Amino acid sequence: MSEAKYTSARIAEIAGGELVGPGDLPVNGVAALALAGTDDVSFLGDDRYRPQVMPSAAGVVLIPARGFDEPPPAGRAWVKCANPGAAFAGLVPLFVPPPLEYPAGVHASAVVHPAAVVAPTAHIGALAVIEAGARVGANSVIGGGAYLGRDAVVGEDCLIYPNVTIRERCILGNRVTIHSGTVIGSDGFGYEQTPQGHRKVPQVGFVQIDDDVEVGALVAVDRARFGKTWIKRDVKVDNLVQIAHNVVIHEHALIIAQVGISGSTSIGAGCVLAGQAGVAGHLTVGAGTMLGGRGGIIKDAPPGSQLMGMPAVDKREYVKQLTAYKGVERCRKEIADLKAEIAELKALLASRA
Amino acid sequence: MSEAKYTSARIAEIAGGELVGPGDLPVNGVAALALAGTDDVSFLGDDRYRPQVMPSAAGVVLIPARGFDEPPPAGRAWVKCANPGAAFAGLVPLFVPPPLEYPAGVHASAVVHPAAVVAPTAHIGALAVIEAGARVGANSVIGGGAYLGRDAVVGEDCLIYPNVTIRERCILGNRVTIHSGTVIGSDGFGYEQTPQGHRKVPQVGFVQIDDDVEVGALVAVDRARFGKTWIKRDVKVDNLVQIAHNVVIHEHALIIAQVGISGSTSIGAGCVLAGQAGVAGHLTVGAGTMLGGRGGIIKDAPPGSQLMGMPAVDKREYVKQLTAYKGVERCRKEIADLKAEIAELKALLASRA
Amino acid sequence: MSEAKYTSARIAEIAGGELVGPGDLPVNGVAALALAGTDDVSFLGDDRYRPQVMPSAAGVVLIPARGFDEPPPAGRAWVKCANPGAAFAGLVPLFVPPPLEYPAGVHASAVVHPAAVVAPTAHIGALAVIEAGARVGANSVIGGGAYLGRDAVVGEDCLIYPNVTIRERCILGNRVTIHSGTVIGSDGFGYEQTPQGHRKVPQVGFVQIDDDVEVGALVAVDRARFGKTWIKRDVKVDNLVQIAHNVVIHEHALIIAQVGISGSTSIGAGCVLAGQAGVAGHLTVGAGTMLGGRGGIIKDAPPGSQLMGMPAVDKREYVKQLTAYKGVERCRKEIADLKAEIAELKALLASRA
Repeated sequence: MSEAKYTSARIAEIAGGELVGPGDLPVNGVAALALAGTDDVSFLGDDRYRPQVMPSAAGVVLIPARGFDEPPPAGRAWVKCANPGAAFAGLVPLFVPPPLEYPAGVHASAVVHPAAVVAPTAHIGALAVIEAGARVGANSVIGGGAYLGRDAVVGEDCLIYPNVTIRERCILGNRVTIHSGTVIGSDGFGYEQTPQGHRKVPQVGFVQIDDDVEVGALVAVDRARFGKTWIKRDVKVDNLVQIAHNVVIHEHALIIAQVGISGSTSIGAGCVLAGQAGVAGHLTVGAGTMLGGRGGIIKDAPPGSQLMGMPAVDKREYVKQLTAYKGVERCRKEIADLKAEIAELKALLASRA
Repeated sequence: MSEAKYTSARIAEIAGGELVGPGDLPVNGVAALALAGTDDVSFLGDDRYRPQVMPSAAGVVLIPARGFDEPPPAGRAWVKCANPGAAFAGLVPLFVPPPLEYPAGVHASAVVHPAAVVAPTAHIGALAVIEAGARVGANSVIGGGAYLGRDAVVGEDCLIYPNVTIRERCILGNRVTIHSGTVIGSDGFGYEQTPQGHRKVPQVGFVQIDDDVEVGALVAVDRARFGKTWIKRDVKVDNLVQIAHNVVIHEHALIIAQVGISGSTSIGAGCVLAGQAGVAGHLTVGAGTMLGGRGGIIKDAPPGSQLMGMPAVDKREYVKQLTAYKGVERCRKEIADLKAEIAELKALLASRA
Repeated sequence: MSEAKYTSARIAEIAGGELVGPGDLPVNGVAALALAGTDDVSFLGDDRYRPQVMPSAAGVVLIPARGFDEPPPAGRAWVKCANPGAAFAGLVPLFVPPPLEYPAGVHASAVVHPAAVVAPTAHIGALAVIEAGARVGANSVIGGGAYLGRDAVVGEDCLIYPNVTIRERCILGNRVTIHSGTVIGSDGFGYEQTPQGHRKVPQVGFVQIDDDVEVGALVAVDRARFGKTWIKRDVKVDNLVQIAHNVVIHEHALIIAQVGISGSTSIGAGCVLAGQAGVAGHLTVGAGTMLGGRGGIIKDAPPGSQLMGMPAVDKREYVKQLTAYKGVERCRKEIADLKAEIAELKALLASRA
């Protein structure tokens, strides 16, 4: 092994913890307990991972100051910390490459229409397309192969990853991040039935995404039928989410992976929709509502609702639903007992007739 | 405010309705009640939105000719219409930019193989790739960054949005629209188990998409194992849908967002599969079947089925399933009552012994 | 019809089967029973398709050597085979175009950074982007419009389809296939709550994909918060799957379309997660576990589990849950009967008082 980046003693010092064990162990990386090698530092951040500490190969483990009393085996060391998770987060940057830098300027291979406006401090990556009338604000990054449609607007300090598609007239605020593959401004799904087949209802609105929003990879955000589909400030959207036309998602909401939100529905501020959940169309979900994984909201929800299941109900009601089938077995047993008792009574009565 | 585009009086005239309130209100846009500003016209198309009319900021609201009797507050106006929704749809085009135009020709940055055939009236966008043997028909649009594989065919009047991928030998008819990010012709998922691991079953078929089909954003349509995966005329597919190898979707079906259809399944004409639903493999779903949101079909369904739930059952059966857990509570209450009655009877009998 | 590619007699010979019917029928293609034309050969591989044999237009059908005794109608022929499915698989290559060839070299329109390393035998397609420090191994293919980020590594004999995005520092082994639209290395979804809103937790790890893995279209694989998200050897992932940060999927697992796996979860070797299933975060799913379609695992699962439902339970328990609602109806009927009996007893007792 070449010169180690750090020693266990130095790690304890940086973490502000108390070293238990040798101080000269080499530390070259950070890793979770289950995946760590002998020259990694790891941490016990949650009691559920306690059984992984001893079998882990991690040379150094940050452990809680109290409650973990086993000494380290030979060749390993603990560092006792008030908050191992926070201390570990502080170590991570020591071992990772610096974030990518995006120099100002337009890559020679990018296609920027003469009628587009790109800030001199913006970075336009290789083979990106910026159509006529589009604008890219100061310090924003448009990744390689990304597409910015006619009259679309990207504000300042945005990070648009490679192969994102932003269609015409969509508007992004400042400090917006969009991950690869995501499509902003595809047509909403709307047809009228006619004897000749489906006739498309024109989808002539746009999408507005406000400041500090982050949208994951492979998310579809449909443009409005008219007016706008609107994702408000500080909303965070995970991967593979469907956001239909005319949806409004209010500030600070968290939309976890594979959620689907149907057309014209409003998601209140601070809501959390867990993975694979869904919300039907034309509904109002009140602020602060929590919807469990795979939950499905099919009627308006008052603010602060705690919902689970499909169709979603209050989480206490959900528990009743889940356990009901056991009640059926108990009922059948008790009914059989009652039958026997009644038969006995009948026999007794008959004997006395 | 600069000169308004329209006045409330002019809007009433265009909508063919009766103005109630001032005729000189400025109208510069269209919007839903909840999002409208003072110079927008909005509409009451469905009774569920009635409570939004008075709180809305919309300066002008199209209301039904009968049944909405509150007068407009100061500075606002109503327009009474026989059908406010239809009248509103007629107003929308006044306020939206004209649709994008795609001039005929190949963008200088596009890569069109010399052995590809592109109609002179077709539009090939910036940085699109058209591989050898591929054909693009009259008036069709291939958006920026889109990819058309070897020997793939796009018919006439098609609209292929930016960053779509159409792989080799897939065939699209006329007036087909494909939204951004979608992948047509990825390999089907098929492996044989061997002692050495999974061995890929070659997926040598293609995808055929017939006239007037629209496919949303980020949809995956796998090529057939052999023969073709087939989406027939006038089928409409929403975003993030999975269509596996050898699936056939018959005319006019509607496949809503995030649905998954497993391999070799046939979806009948005019079926509607609602959001996040699924259909298992090798099944036949009869024409006109309606599958509710998140429903899951796991056996053949006769034509005209009305299905809900997972596994999907007739919707009346589904309602029974949903409410069964309440029946359990009632049963337990009644069993307790019966126990008490029997105990009473026993005591009575004992007292008479 | 022009000269046929094969005759029914020649097909029987190649298939190693016994011809029943005329030997001079023309055969120009392969197709499933339901889609075949008169000059196609088809097969009966599974008894469920037996009713399709007679109505099929297929001129030639491979049938099992025993158990199918109806003679072919005029103008059609059967070929009796020991294993019709295997025999058919052997015929398919006769009728399909040869697989695409990817000549060694970099397309003139691709953008390969001077500090990238591309093997001379690799193929870099039109308008692909290879960033600084990235490496592409011998015989690997990077499709048109695909993006390979800074310091990313693609091993030997890999097939990266058009419009794939592989972000910085991600590492692929040998013989890895990635289908179009897929995103490898998007940021994990992690935020801390602060009074000012969500603060992003840096996602500084990477994704490692080992030898012989195949990943379908439009799959999102998030990079690790630190360390790596890891897909091990011979894992096969279908389309539209979500794989969150720090997930580990062990050897040979099969992950079917639209599955979601939450952060830091470990999926054991040889597991099968069926379509639209999900697994919550920070869980360990034991080797060989089978999770049914739409199932949802919310706690650790021991090796060899057979799970269904949401939340997932043992499949026998699941069947009980599904049928419980019928038990409720029976209970209510039996309770009514008991009530009647008790009323009778009471009346009898009263009459004797």
